[in-house]
Amino acid sequence: MVGYPCNENFDYSELLPFLEFHTNNVGDPFGSSNFGANTFEIEREVLEIFAKFTQAPSDEFWGYVTTGGTEGNMYGLYLARELYPDGIVYYSEETHYSVAKSLRVLRTRSVMIKSQQNGEIDYEDLFETLRIHRDSPAIIFANVGTTMKGAVDDVGRLRAMLRELRVAKSYIHVDAALSGMILPFVEEPGAWNFSAGADSISISGHKMLGSPLPSGILLAKKSYVDRIARSVEYVGALDTTLSGSRSAFSPLILWYALKRLGETGLRENVRHCIELAQYATVELEKRKIPAWRNHNSITVIFPRPSESVIRKWQIAPYKDIGHMITMPHVTKNLVDQFIQDYLRTPPHAQVSCPLLSPGVRSISTRSSSNEKDSR
Amino acid sequence: MVGYPCNENFDYSELLPFLEFHTNNVGDPFGSSNFGANTFEIEREVLEIFAKFTQAPSDEFWGYVTTGGTEGNMYGLYLARELYPDGIVYYSEETHYSVAKSLRVLRTRSVMIKSQQNGEIDYEDLFETLRIHRDSPAIIFANVGTTMKGAVDDVGRLRAMLRELRVAKSYIHVDAALSGMILPFVEEPGAWNFSAGADSISISGHKMLGSPLPSGILLAKKSYVDRIARSVEYVGALDTTLSGSRSAFSPLILWYALKRLGETGLRENVRHCIELAQYATVELEKRKIPAWRNHNSITVIFPRPSESVIRKWQIAPYKDIGHMITMPHVTKNLVDQFIQDYLRTPPHAQVSCPLLSPGVRSISTRSSSNEKDSR
Repeated sequence: MVGYPCNENFDYSELLPFLEFHTNNVGDPFGSSNFGANTFEIEREVLEIFAKFTQAPSDEFWGYVTTGGTEGNMYGLYLARELYPDGIVYYSEETHYSVAKSLRVLRTRSVMIKSQQNGEIDYEDLFETLRIHRDSPAIIFANVGTTMKGAVDDVGRLRAMLRELRVAKSYIHVDAALSGMILPFVEEPGAWNFSAGADSISISGHKMLGSPLPSGILLAKKSYVDRIARSVEYVGALDTTLSGSRSAFSPLILWYALKRLGETGLRENVRHCIELAQYATVELEKRKIPAWRNHNSITVIFPRPSESVIRKWQIAPYKDIGHMITMPHVTKNLVDQFIQDYLRTPPHAQVSCPLLSPGVRSISTRSSSNEKDSR
Repeated sequence: MVGYPCNENFDYSELLPFLEFHTNNVGDPFGSSNFGANTFEIEREVLEIFAKFTQAPSDEFWGYVTTGGTEGNMYGLYLARELYPDGIVYYSEETHYSVAKSLRVLRTRSVMIKSQQNGEIDYEDLFETLRIHRDSPAIIFANVGTTMKGAVDDVGRLRAMLRELRVAKSYIHVDAALSGMILPFVEEPGAWNFSAGADSISISGHKMLGSPLPSGILLAKKSYVDRIARSVEYVGALDTTLSGSRSAFSPLILWYALKRLGETGLRENVRHCIELAQYATVELEKRKIPAWRNHNSITVIFPRPSESVIRKWQIAPYKDIGHMITMPHVTKNLVDQFIQDYLRTPPHAQVSCPLLSPGVRSISTRSSSNEKDSR
């Protein structure tokens, strides 16, 4: 499997005895629970580690282990909407489809913003749209690693934009599903986390860390959450999560992975993944395939492969493109095999717009009018 | 543990090898997915079994395995709101606190209805309230087993009420977290499921069946879901679930439990639980403790125990009352020990309103004005 961002390198056999019992982290991990078989303490430790990776203000963050990125993103948007009930959510067209679904659930006003060809939000389109709605609170949904192209929106630039337009009431939620566990370990991460101006961040647990079950982390500034907290006696816990009953096993898995790898191991994993992504890009290019990737990204984009390649290698295509994601379990040998298969079963889809060249970091030109057709 | 409705009698060791891999049931289990390591087929089989238990119209139901009751209830309410965006949700005061939270997330108009002393919805209060709002679509959130008292709202009576008031646009969601796996196996289940007029039903997976991880089942009439389905190419699946990435392991657990027990085993479990609940009620009464339970319920209500008993036996108290839930892992011996502890450490809370006598099925008198103080 090279198409989905799930690390298959894991071994949690030491944790399996915990599955002899029903455990449950119902409610707020920073509260207490009458349900004794919980892992709140471990969960808080996991959150502390992620808080460090995302430069969250110490002692001023809150969070919980979610069922996955979708719940974390919905929580961030829910929090923003509770703070600014009449706010407008701005999100780029390359945003994961689940966000539009969550916005519908939340009944929130929203505007889709154009994306640049590399997948990053079109800052000019966003700026002009924000300008038109200066009188409304602005809730920006930023992508730190888009699903298809691994593109990172510049959170520092988004904040600067809000300042320039004097939008006093604003909120930035960051969907860092995949790149949230890449950027803390690279030389030039760019501005993407709490220190850059994020108000909440969602990261997947089963992507870079690897887990048999989907999970995720949601972190937010504590003062925001305090405002919506309500005490509920039934569970003896503050009712601040979305789920109610929550897996007590997922925090154990994340804790185990974080402790086993340590920062050194995580950094080494990221180095391996980026090197391999670059290798795959260059090898495809050598064979005249217009492959490319974003800076710091492990997602390699190429023209859509044949259906048999899609099935065999578990590729998630979108219109004319497909991608390979060089997760920790992917090897050079696997990349070589994939490329062989890819070349053996043409024709790939006709590419109706020029693909980018490798190493392109950001494109500032506006999207062309025919971009829509090409996606 | 006798205070929470979690069956501790399980052994899923045969399934643990599946945790060597990342599996994921992203999207609609009745669709297809490009992500090959899924258990959609098993999930559909689980849903078929639950559809039978809930008398869902065959070939006209849809559903999925959720992360727990909260998600199932939110989904039911989401579906209802999508059908009737200007509908009003009616729910009783004994409804689980997570429902008020979900209604807030969904931005839906709602009215809280009084409960009777036994925990069942106050039908007169509901009728009068529905009458006032006859011009708005009615979305009734019914409890089939309230959290604190195990009371069952009569879905047939709710439907009759809507007919009598000629409310053409209506929807009934049933929260059958616990009793949804009790009532299919008793002699006189009453009117509670699809055949009685439910439009969607949510049942917990980790309660009667038992599971190390929280899970649940959501079932709904297929035609409703079809209306809100949207095709999304990214996962090659119809995007009709709330979660996005979903556990592929939970369906395996439910399937295993259902197959291992079979209908005979499930029926035997329920018989054991009800007999034990009756035993506990009678034994407490013999000692002059005003304990009682609802018909077909395995929840035994008594005056709130001391703090040490709450902690030791994992009791979830609410104001003046506590309860014991005689799940399959609870034995006569455990009940006897609990009663000993309960009697040894008085005082229990002063009971400021008369508690019901055992065997009370339904109380038709209106709630007294001081009931609020006593809850």
